[in-house]
Order: sequence, then structure tokens, then C-alpha cells
Amino acid sequence: MSNPSLLILAGDGIGPEVMEQVKRIIGWYGDKRDLTFDVFEDLVGGAAYDAHGVPLHDDTMAKAQKVDAVLLGAVGGPAYDDLDFSVKPERGLLRLRKEMDLFANLRPAQCFDALADFSSLKKDIVAGLDIMIVRELTSGVYFGEPRGIHVEDNMRVGINTQRYTEAEIERAARSAFELARRRNNKVCSMEKANVMESGILWRDVVNEVHQADYADVELSHMYADNGAMQLVRAPKQFDVILTDNLFGDILSDCAAMLTGSLGMLPSASLGLPMANGRPKAMYEPVHGSAPDIAGQGKANPIACILSFAMALRYSFDEGAEADRLEAAIEKVLADGARTGDLMGPEGGTPISTTEMGDVILEAL
Amino acid sequence: MSNPSLLILAGDGIGPEVMEQVKRIIGWYGDKRDLTFDVFEDLVGGAAYDAHGVPLHDDTMAKAQKVDAVLLGAVGGPAYDDLDFSVKPERGLLRLRKEMDLFANLRPAQCFDALADFSSLKKDIVAGLDIMIVRELTSGVYFGEPRGIHVEDNMRVGINTQRYTEAEIERAARSAFELARRRNNKVCSMEKANVMESGILWRDVVNEVHQADYADVELSHMYADNGAMQLVRAPKQFDVILTDNLFGDILSDCAAMLTGSLGMLPSASLGLPMANGRPKAMYEPVHGSAPDIAGQGKANPIACILSFAMALRYSFDEGAEADRLEAAIEKVLADGARTGDLMGPEGGTPISTTEMGDVILEAL
Ligand SMILES: CC(C)[C@H](C(=O)O)[C@@H](O)C(=O)O
Ligand SMILES: CC(C)[C@H](C(=O)O)[C@@H](O)C(=O)O
Repeated sequence: MSNPSLLILAGDGIGPEVMEQVKRIIGWYGDKRDLTFDVFEDLVGGAAYDAHGVPLHDDTMAKAQKVDAVLLGAVGGPAYDDLDFSVKPERGLLRLRKEMDLFANLRPAQCFDALADFSSLKKDIVAGLDIMIVRELTSGVYFGEPRGIHVEDNMRVGINTQRYTEAEIERAARSAFELARRRNNKVCSMEKANVMESGILWRDVVNEVHQADYADVELSHMYADNGAMQLVRAPKQFDVILTDNLFGDILSDCAAMLTGSLGMLPSASLGLPMANGRPKAMYEPVHGSAPDIAGQGKANPIACILSFAMALRYSFDEGAEADRLEAAIEKVLADGARTGDLMGPEGGTPISTTEMGDVILEAL
Repeated sequence: MSNPSLLILAGDGIGPEVMEQVKRIIGWYGDKRDLTFDVFEDLVGGAAYDAHGVPLHDDTMAKAQKVDAVLLGAVGGPAYDDLDFSVKPERGLLRLRKEMDLFANLRPAQCFDALADFSSLKKDIVAGLDIMIVRELTSGVYFGEPRGIHVEDNMRVGINTQRYTEAEIERAARSAFELARRRNNKVCSMEKANVMESGILWRDVVNEVHQADYADVELSHMYADNGAMQLVRAPKQFDVILTDNLFGDILSDCAAMLTGSLGMLPSASLGLPMANGRPKAMYEPVHGSAPDIAGQGKANPIACILSFAMALRYSFDEGAEADRLEAAIEKVLADGARTGDLMGPEGGTPISTTEMGDVILEAL
């Protein structure tokens, strides 16, 4: 049997730096745990644009479709701010999500004990926080047609279309319910059914799926504006939050920031099972390309490493190895290892991206 | 000259209770400050539905168009959750916004010193916070066509349309820049120009208006997901935030919750000048109808009273009287007056809605 395969798309900004550390971890698994991956690398985002004039080359897309999982760093940066919409770095990412049909974006918002003090929220409100946001990732206003800017009566008009089919809602809802069963068995679905018909359909379909197959899971509904409020007020009331592409974008960033652990948060984007039974999958840190610190060896590689841990769990059925990696990270944090983003106002000397990789490898 | 006129639409839930106290304040201005308003009252939301089968009667709409300002309490409640979309309580509110063309929704997010402890955020992050969110209120995905749920290939599809013309963006932007000039001269505009063409047009038009007429105001742009993060991380970096209808809904609720003063926050929705020079205007508290405490005399009337203060300032050019009213409220808070929502975990005996009205009237 051939080795499982990984495509690494390090992308822009701090992407390549943090991915360097992930590659060392992958190497460790091959050497020490007999878990060898065939690793391919390619370009995405601004890096792909610089090389090919497009944010994702067709060849790269084809490779992504063939591997068992994609690991992505980050895309975008000020150098690309003035690019045309159609070649913006983000479009490379969106093309991967869409063409791989990665409809379920899993974004854990977890507060690491050692870091609870970094949250802007009071410690008792966030300590121990552990939410999973399931964001629908291949539809909604990100992809709906018609879209664009055109001229009507001598005036520019900008148009996007929020569009959800019941099948799209159903499969996202199933992912959320399945996850809830392995967690605290609670799903809160968020939309704006009070003002948007797409939100009404969302709520109806979630209720139908629930009644048909997941009546054992506790289900509630919340308007997305109230959801944002409740996340700030009392985030621990949530277990799994299910929401659409656009609300999920905002609410998951809000939730991530609550934890004080932004440089620590991974994500998984999952699609349908492939012939080998593994889901189509892409893993990436929640943080962006952080152009302000790119190339300085300051970036925290943990979010990207934890994304690889999610790959071990969701793509390769190596839950125990994922636990091992997560435990190693908890240990180095408990021991006081800190990149710059993890330093409190009291200061101290941060370690570098590579040094963080070193201590994690040691702890493994 | 005839008196300025007000239409009171108390609505549902705690709406009527908090509005009772506003009426007493309005009476006080007539008696003591020779500022007499002609006050009309009518129904909106579930209350209108119960009486007329629609959430806003045409006669009420016509009255709203004629008065100098509308004061609205709150709409909605569990009794109306299963109503058809077209007669939901919220549609009464949306009809008022749309037909009065109230395009600029001003939502101050202010942290009251006496209440900073109620925020889930650390005190130093929110103490003294004073942001103004300008939310476009009459367009975007709330109103765009096509919309609805229909069947395609035997499957239900939910559709809404995000649609902005440059004129709509321009007038919202002007409101934000004008306000910024009277505050700290900074506007941050939020959209998702990285994934939505309507966001690109938004950013372009805001830049054009800025260059043409407001180059003296400091302007920045932020993606809305990052905006939500930054609001949680360091909200004091903002002065005026300009954003669209849907992002504004979520971001303003998030910002409101940060302050710990949710029961304290008013809003103004302003349109074009009428023949008398006053803008079309509706004022309402940011909080909702709070069905859980409705009818119990527990609601905090301050948000609604501060909404009337905004009316004094923006509709009636009575800035000094608005200051007086705001000062009275600050005084009673400093003196320790607290409705239930303003009690910390250490407890104490809350005063009632009416008692809060009493002490504010005394302080005036
Ligand atoms: C980079 C951008 C296109 C992307 C999104 O909006 O989905 C990002 O914000 C995210 O949440 O993954
Ligand atoms: C009640 C609802 C229709 C409304 C909105 O979504 O605009 C509310 O959330 C608000 O922000 O005023």
C-alpha cells in the first residue's frame, strides 16, 4: 500500500515559516512512528500569482484533487491589495474550497489554560472554553450568482447572491450533528430567519434533519446578531455552532478572538469521501498571513501544527497520534515556551518560530 | 408655529413598559422646559398583527411619514415565532425603515463608567469606550430582489440578494464622515471586498467620497471578519465604524454587548431632510423585546429614554436638552440606581422600571 499523501501549499506571509515547522513534525512521524507521508509542495495565493499570474494554477488544483489531504498556510498581503478581484490571493483559496467541495469547515474555538490571560475577556468567562463552529464553506454569498459590479441608469451597482439549496444545508447540518454526538451533544444553528428567506430555509432544513436522524442531539436556533452577542456575553453556553459561509466567517473569527489563542487555532475543511474512504480535506490555521511579522522568524507555528493534528484525526484516523501531538503542544506551553504573540504585557524573551518547532519535537 | 410631533410605537414585550417612562420624560419637557410635543401613539409588530393581521397598518405608516420623529420600543416575541415571514413583527420595523428611507442607522456603543464591571471584557479594554457605528439601513441583503424560497429540480432553494448602488453607499458614507468630524475624526469602513464584489464597490465609493469631500477625516478599511476580531481585541481603536446593513446588524450587536451596557444603548435611524429641514427619523433602543421579563416591571427604560435624547439632538436641534437628559441619567447611575439588568453578581435590590423613571425625573 502506498503512503498517504499530503499537498503543502504554504502560501504567503508567515505561511512558509510556520509550514517549515509542520514539515519537521511530518518528518518526525515518518522517522519515529512509522507514519510516512508522501509530501508534495506547490504555490497558492500571492506566491502563485507571482509565479503564474493566477492565485492557483490548474496543475496545483489537479494535485489537490489527488492527494489525501491539503495543508495550507495563509494567503494574501499588502503587495496584492490592488490586484483585480479575479486574481486576488483569496480566490486561490476559494477555488480549492469550491472545487474540492469542502462543505464543512470545522473551527474549534478553544481557550488554552496557559493563555486564558491573553483574552480580552475576563478569565472566568473564557477559561476552559471549547466550542466547535461548523461553517458551511462552499455556497452562500461567497459563490452565488449573479454577482459583480455593473452599471444601471448610469450608476454602478454591486451585486452578490446568497443562495442555499436544501441539500447544501442538509449536509452541513449532518456534519454538525455528528460532531455534537462526539462532544457535548448540543448544536446551536445561527441565521437571520427573521429577515432573510434563505435563513428560513436554513432553519427548516436543520429542523428536518434533526427530527429525522438526530433527535437525540439538543438543538437550538439563534439569530446571528444575537449569536455574536452571546459569544461575547457567555461563550461557554455553546458546544457546536452551525452556520452559513458568511455568518460563519464573522462568528468564527469573533469566537477565535475570544479565546486569546488566535495564533493557536487550527481548522479543517472537509468534503465527501473519496474512493479510499477518506474525506476530501484541507487543513489550515485560522490566523492569516500576518504580513507585519512575515519573514522575521516571529510567527507562532502552533495553529499550523494543530491543523496537521486535525489532519491526523479527520483524514488519517490517527486520533491517538493527534492526541500525542496536542499533548506535546500543551506540555511546551505549560513549560513556558512562548512565541511573541503569546507574551503578556509583563514581557519576557520570546522564542522564534524554529525554536517553538524544536521544543515541540523534543516533547513528542 | 405648531408643536413638533412624535409618533410612539411601543410595540411588543417590554416596549410598552419602557415607553411609559419616555412619555413621562416627554411630559416633563412640556411642563418644565416649554418644549411641548404633539404625541401620537399606534401599534407595530406583534401588537399590530394582533389588532390588524399585519405588523404595520397602512394608516400607521402614513402617520409615521407625517410626524417629525418616530419613537419605537421593540418588536417580536415567542407568540409570533410561527407566523408567516410576510407578517412577522420584524417586517413592520423593516417597512418603516424602508418607506421612511432611513438609510443611516447610528448606534453608539458606549461603556458607562458605572457599568464597566458588567462587561465580559476586562475593564481596561472597555472603560471609556465610545464608538459610533453607522449602519446602512435601507438596502443590502435585507431588501434586495430576487428573494424567497422556491423549488428547483425538486429541491427547495433559499435566495436573497445583496445589492448596493453607489448612491446608497455614498449617502451612508457621508453620514459617517460628518459624524466623525464632530467626534474623533476617524472612520473605519468594514466589508468583505476580498470575497464580494458588492464589498469592492463599497470600498471604492467610500474612498471616492473621502477623497472628494472628507480628506481631512482619517479613513481606514477592514474586512468585516477582522472587524469583529478587532472589536473584541481592542475596541478603543475605533471612532466611527461604517458598514452595510447585514454586517452592521452583527457588528453593532457585538459592539453593544462589549460595553456591558446593553440595556443602556439607544439608536437613531435617519433619512433625508423633510420640508421643515428635519431629517426623517426613528429612534429606538438597541435591545429587543425581552419576552422573558416583559410585563414584570423589571425592564430598564434607560436605552429608550436615551433614544429620546438622541431625538432631541438629531431631530429637534436641542443638543443642550439632550445633554441635560443624559447628565440626569449619569447622575442616577452614579447615585446607585439600578434596574435588575444593572445588578452585579454581588446582588442588591433592583428598582422597578417606574422607579427608574421616578429618579430620572427627579434628577432632571
Ligand atoms: C481569506 C478569506 C477569503 C477567508 C474567508 O472569507 O473565508 C478567511 O477570512 C477565512 O475565514 O478563511
Ligand atoms: C429585529 C430585526 C429585524 C433587526 C435587524 O435585523 O435589523 C434588529 O436585529 C436590529 O438590529 O435592529
